[in-house]
Amino acid sequence: MSADPLARLADVIESRKPANGGDPDASYVARLLHKGPDAFLKKIGEEATEVVMAAKDADHGGDRAKIVGEVADLWFHCMIALAHYGLKPADVVAELQRREGLSGLEEKALRKVREREGKGE
Amino acid sequence: MSADPLARLADVIESRKPANGGDPDASYVARLLHKGPDAFLKKIGEEATEVVMAAKDADHGGDRAKIVGEVADLWFHCMIALAHYGLKPADVVAELQRREGLSGLEEKALRKVREREGKGE
Amino acid sequence: MSADPLARLADVIESRKPANGGDPDASYVARLLHKGPDAFLKKIGEEATEVVMAAKDADHGGDRAKIVGEVADLWFHCMIALAHYGLKPADVVAELQRREGLSGLEEKALRKVREREGKGE
Amino acid sequence: MSADPLARLADVIESRKPANGGDPDASYVARLLHKGPDAFLKKIGEEATEVVMAAKDADHGGDRAKIVGEVADLWFHCMIALAHYGLKPADVVAELQRREGLSGLEEKALRKVREREGKGE
Repeated sequence: MSADPLARLADVIESRKPANGGDPDASYVARLLHKGPDAFLKKIGEEATEVVMAAKDADHGGDRAKIVGEVADLWFHCMIALAHYGLKPADVVAELQRREGLSGLEEKALRKVREREGKGE
Repeated sequence: MSADPLARLADVIESRKPANGGDPDASYVARLLHKGPDAFLKKIGEEATEVVMAAKDADHGGDRAKIVGEVADLWFHCMIALAHYGLKPADVVAELQRREGLSGLEEKALRKVREREGKGE
Repeated sequence: MSADPLARLADVIESRKPANGGDPDASYVARLLHKGPDAFLKKIGEEATEVVMAAKDADHGGDRAKIVGEVADLWFHCMIALAHYGLKPADVVAELQRREGLSGLEEKALRKVREREGKGE
Repeated sequence: MSADPLARLADVIESRKPANGGDPDASYVARLLHKGPDAFLKKIGEEATEVVMAAKDADHGGDRAKIVGEVADLWFHCMIALAHYGLKPADVVAELQRREGLSGLEEKALRKVREREGKGE
């Protein structure tokens, strides 16, 4: 597996920005970027819901491949949002890496849980 | 950028599965996997909302770095779900790749839009 | 304020069911009900996100009236889902009532939090 | 059915506001209101996801009563948000009413769809 697909995809999304000549009439991404944040942020909420629905279907015998497609849609729309804010998927991967793999993430998550417990929530 | 962090993270998540000896009392991921789908699917909905909130804050002058952290949280919980269903982030990256970069994705997205229009929605 | 509008709205939604002759080509609700659960459940995720976006905009000086419109959209799509499953908004209001107003709800919410804490989350 | 429960619930939520002496250590609602928008907006995303999960379970033979409970949770957290922004559930019901029942809502929804189609989405 190589993350190059993510970087390449980010480059194409970048080229669809209005400032880079993206054409809202020819490109789905250009259209979302042209419409502005609410358009693609709304899609993130919608696609997250579709991931959940595909997972519930898989719980009940549905095709797991649908989950892959929905997560791809979700991550894709996240990448459109990242591009709008001048960010890249590499920043996200670096953040996951910075947390030193799962152990770091778990420490962070457990710390949050402990803080919440300490606060009585 | 390398996707190795995603693969390595997926490996650690895999080791947290109940079947692989993950300890729900010691590991956040093991706890979510032990609780079952509703626990981590609910988090996907919650984290997607946090991405949207961080983005809206950035629209109004907030720190863009927060978006990176929230997208990392969202993708991380997606990876926990993927692991539960025997899937890997490489499958998602491959799916993004299979669509031949953005052009394929755009064709798919535009096709969906056209179908929707054809159906009168 | 009277809940009659909710009951009346539920009646109209009921009449849009395929079994009751709802016409997918003439009615938005009939179309959603005809498409089946994924169509309106997806909208619940999307509309919840729109409530959050409108609220964040209000935090930064935006029009609070937009929140009302988005919550109305969210509740409306919840009512479509309720109808599909043979449920009514009165059931939801009764459930809120059954919990004996906020104190009951708070007890439930606090109990959940305490259970979570007891379980180490 | 009477909407009085919604109005009464809104009154209790109102009394939990920090400005009205709500105690974050004794009341779940007071705690959410004290924490500020992100705390309860995040819950709206989470509860919407739980509605979707309960509905999918019902599709596969699960208990429909769970849907009622989850919609109640979702509407309840919407009401906390409404309170924070100085709004009431009566505003939402009035908005649903203002749209003249379903026909108005459908006109609005269909208009949106037509606009979207007109714009090529």
